[in-house]
Amino acid sequence: MPPPVLADPRVAALRDDALANDHYAWDVVEGLTTEVGQRLAATEAEARARDWAVRRLTAMGFANVHVEPFTMPVWTRGAEGAEIVAPFPQKLAVAALGYSGSTGPEGITGQIAYFPTVDALRAAPDSAVAGKIVFIDHHMMPAQDGSGYGQFGAPRRQGPTIASLKGAVGIVIRSIGTDHHRNPHTGVQYFTDGAKPIPAGALSVPDAEQLIRILERGKPVTMHLTLVSQKTDGGRSGNVIAEVPGRDPKAPILLIGGHLDSWDLATGAIDDGAGVAITTAAAKHIMDAGRPLRTIRIVWFGAEEPGGFGGKAYAEAHGKEAHAIAGESDFGADRVWRFSSQLKTSDPAAYAQLAASLAPLGITRNDKGDADGTDVEPTIAAGAPWITLNQDGTRYFDWHHTPDDTLDKIDPAQLRQNVAAWTAMLAVLSGGIEPGAKRPKRR
Amino acid sequence: MPPPVLADPRVAALRDDALANDHYAWDVVEGLTTEVGQRLAATEAEARARDWAVRRLTAMGFANVHVEPFTMPVWTRGAEGAEIVAPFPQKLAVAALGYSGSTGPEGITGQIAYFPTVDALRAAPDSAVAGKIVFIDHHMMPAQDGSGYGQFGAPRRQGPTIASLKGAVGIVIRSIGTDHHRNPHTGVQYFTDGAKPIPAGALSVPDAEQLIRILERGKPVTMHLTLVSQKTDGGRSGNVIAEVPGRDPKAPILLIGGHLDSWDLATGAIDDGAGVAITTAAAKHIMDAGRPLRTIRIVWFGAEEPGGFGGKAYAEAHGKEAHAIAGESDFGADRVWRFSSQLKTSDPAAYAQLAASLAPLGITRNDKGDADGTDVEPTIAAGAPWITLNQDGTRYFDWHHTPDDTLDKIDPAQLRQNVAAWTAMLAVLSGGIEPGAKRPKRR
Repeated sequence: MPPPVLADPRVAALRDDALANDHYAWDVVEGLTTEVGQRLAATEAEARARDWAVRRLTAMGFANVHVEPFTMPVWTRGAEGAEIVAPFPQKLAVAALGYSGSTGPEGITGQIAYFPTVDALRAAPDSAVAGKIVFIDHHMMPAQDGSGYGQFGAPRRQGPTIASLKGAVGIVIRSIGTDHHRNPHTGVQYFTDGAKPIPAGALSVPDAEQLIRILERGKPVTMHLTLVSQKTDGGRSGNVIAEVPGRDPKAPILLIGGHLDSWDLATGAIDDGAGVAITTAAAKHIMDAGRPLRTIRIVWFGAEEPGGFGGKAYAEAHGKEAHAIAGESDFGADRVWRFSSQLKTSDPAAYAQLAASLAPLGITRNDKGDADGTDVEPTIAAGAPWITLNQDGTRYFDWHHTPDDTLDKIDPAQLRQNVAAWTAMLAVLSGGIEPGAKRPKRR
Repeated sequence: MPPPVLADPRVAALRDDALANDHYAWDVVEGLTTEVGQRLAATEAEARARDWAVRRLTAMGFANVHVEPFTMPVWTRGAEGAEIVAPFPQKLAVAALGYSGSTGPEGITGQIAYFPTVDALRAAPDSAVAGKIVFIDHHMMPAQDGSGYGQFGAPRRQGPTIASLKGAVGIVIRSIGTDHHRNPHTGVQYFTDGAKPIPAGALSVPDAEQLIRILERGKPVTMHLTLVSQKTDGGRSGNVIAEVPGRDPKAPILLIGGHLDSWDLATGAIDDGAGVAITTAAAKHIMDAGRPLRTIRIVWFGAEEPGGFGGKAYAEAHGKEAHAIAGESDFGADRVWRFSSQLKTSDPAAYAQLAASLAPLGITRNDKGDADGTDVEPTIAAGAPWITLNQDGTRYFDWHHTPDDTLDKIDPAQLRQNVAAWTAMLAVLSGGIEPGAKRPKRR
């Protein structure tokens, strides 16, 4: 039998205190979503969010709070609408996808070319597509691990390019979502392979189902589509960085965070106000307890949604620095249900301690897990060991990238469980926390 | 001990067949919501819906299918938006209430005057309201019997008039709803007591909660509100009527139905596509079985939402005719859970038969019930005995009057239970069904 592995009681105490008492995470996500609201990448709203972040992180007592700016193209949304012209005139709810081409204010009109999957579109002759508005369906269902997003997200990621290369004048997809509300799911896509940008939108799930019912009547379906948008270069974004300084400035650091930007349709409570709130709250709990051996660096990444610009900028600036771990929280605010880490092979003792410390939160070890997270991936690619704390994604794609990503979707108890998990992880990997001469006053 | 009351086996057989096999109701509500979509009262969309109804009712084999037209004022919605200007700039989701005044396309700007209840607004001095945009909150929660709608609906029904009389430039209310989606609940209100129409809108529940969080920061809150709308006289609406002719043309008739119009934000699947579908399907099951003694009259009432115009028009034309019963289905598509009827006192034997016939569907007798239903109330006031089949309203106010009132909200099994209940009710009160010389081919 293997020897028993028991959690360090100091780690357990920090974890359980966070689980019972944390309010930092709620305060951050409530404050950010209320006082800033939506914060689309590289817009003035994201700039206000950075100002808010610097003020809040400074007020919380973190060290070295600063912004690391970068520039990027900025895409913004204008007037939008979709309307069946024939055979059954009616309006459908639509939202443009990121980097969609613009129809101009007058819109475009075309016959719908329906494809049940992105592969059906791929297999179609150009003649079935040219001059038409493509519509792609899919059948994504909720999954705890969110795994459907990769496979079923193909209509959004690849559909517009394929449609454009075949001569479509526009494309609408069934929202990459698992809900039944009239709120379309936006999200990024790129035109690749030389494809000319065309207007690309997502219908809400009920509207996509309505369009399918209309198509099933067997008559040609004509749509009028208006997706006004604008893309300009030279937008300004940035990463907001704060630290809990370690006792050993040369020890490899612990990198944690989430992304500050959101899509423009909602206040981005679960994507990703929760992520910056959870990781920041965990670091604060360590700081409240004393001084860790390793520096903890919190990054509120900028411009994740349009393509992980902040994560790339961080890796360019800091990827060569020694990291002991890199992990991000960017999958909502529901509970952590399992974790995985490269430490399984590189530091089995630490991995065993993580498993023992997280198990009382109901978190299982996933020995087959992978690195995950748009923002930390470039730093992991540069050599940082990774850790992934998987959140329960069963409800996530009901709200992801929709107008419904608002504070009310966050369950405070599950949010605290997240903070407890991240606090435990930091405590295990901190190198030891030395109580301050005088404990800072809590709360 | 009272004597046992057993359901007539012929009634039970019709009920159970409808429960197991009905497809008429689904076909009607699916067809109406797909092929017509939204059908705002007195607009061309409602006219298309009447044409659709006449075609469908005729195709189903009903007799005396016709439209009884009437005229009324028509209110239509234009561009809409709400934006916090200060202290935290952001957009909120809003929809105008019926008969709202118009801000004009440029909108209005005003400071928010917040009231937790409509009585708090009533108690406020004019000076606290004049020149401002009133915001009224409430705390409606889901209830199976939907009873909160009366009490908690006061901000919508009375708020705009009170605000106007105190000199407000506009009003927004927390949507009269029980969900947490970014879909505002519209609904009718009237300016009474000489109040000048002012712009009146509903914020979605998450947006109302956001506004409250912003107000709790203690700074003055300024809103820019755009609610463009138009009211004109001389709109045309109408009731669509169809019958199953009774063997005795002089016997008092059975009046059933729902309303054909919907609000403009969605396809009106639960309000009230389901109601016309359920009652029509039940009449069709009786017609399929043979010829009832009493005539069954189905009415698809026009223009219920803006104030029960169709119900009043029907009562004016037909209120003096002898009705054996009057009942409507207008509370969604979830299961019938109890019933009540004036027959309790006027025809206790029939009431007992109804109770025995409905119990196997899980429907309880409610001896304290009341007449209910905007469309049949004027006919009941003119003397028709009433029956109420109460649907489960737990989910109803999540979707009521929002963009989310779409077909996917209907559970086909619960829809069939409704049809079974109405079929049983009609069979009990039919006066006996005489099988046709040749049974019509079913399905």
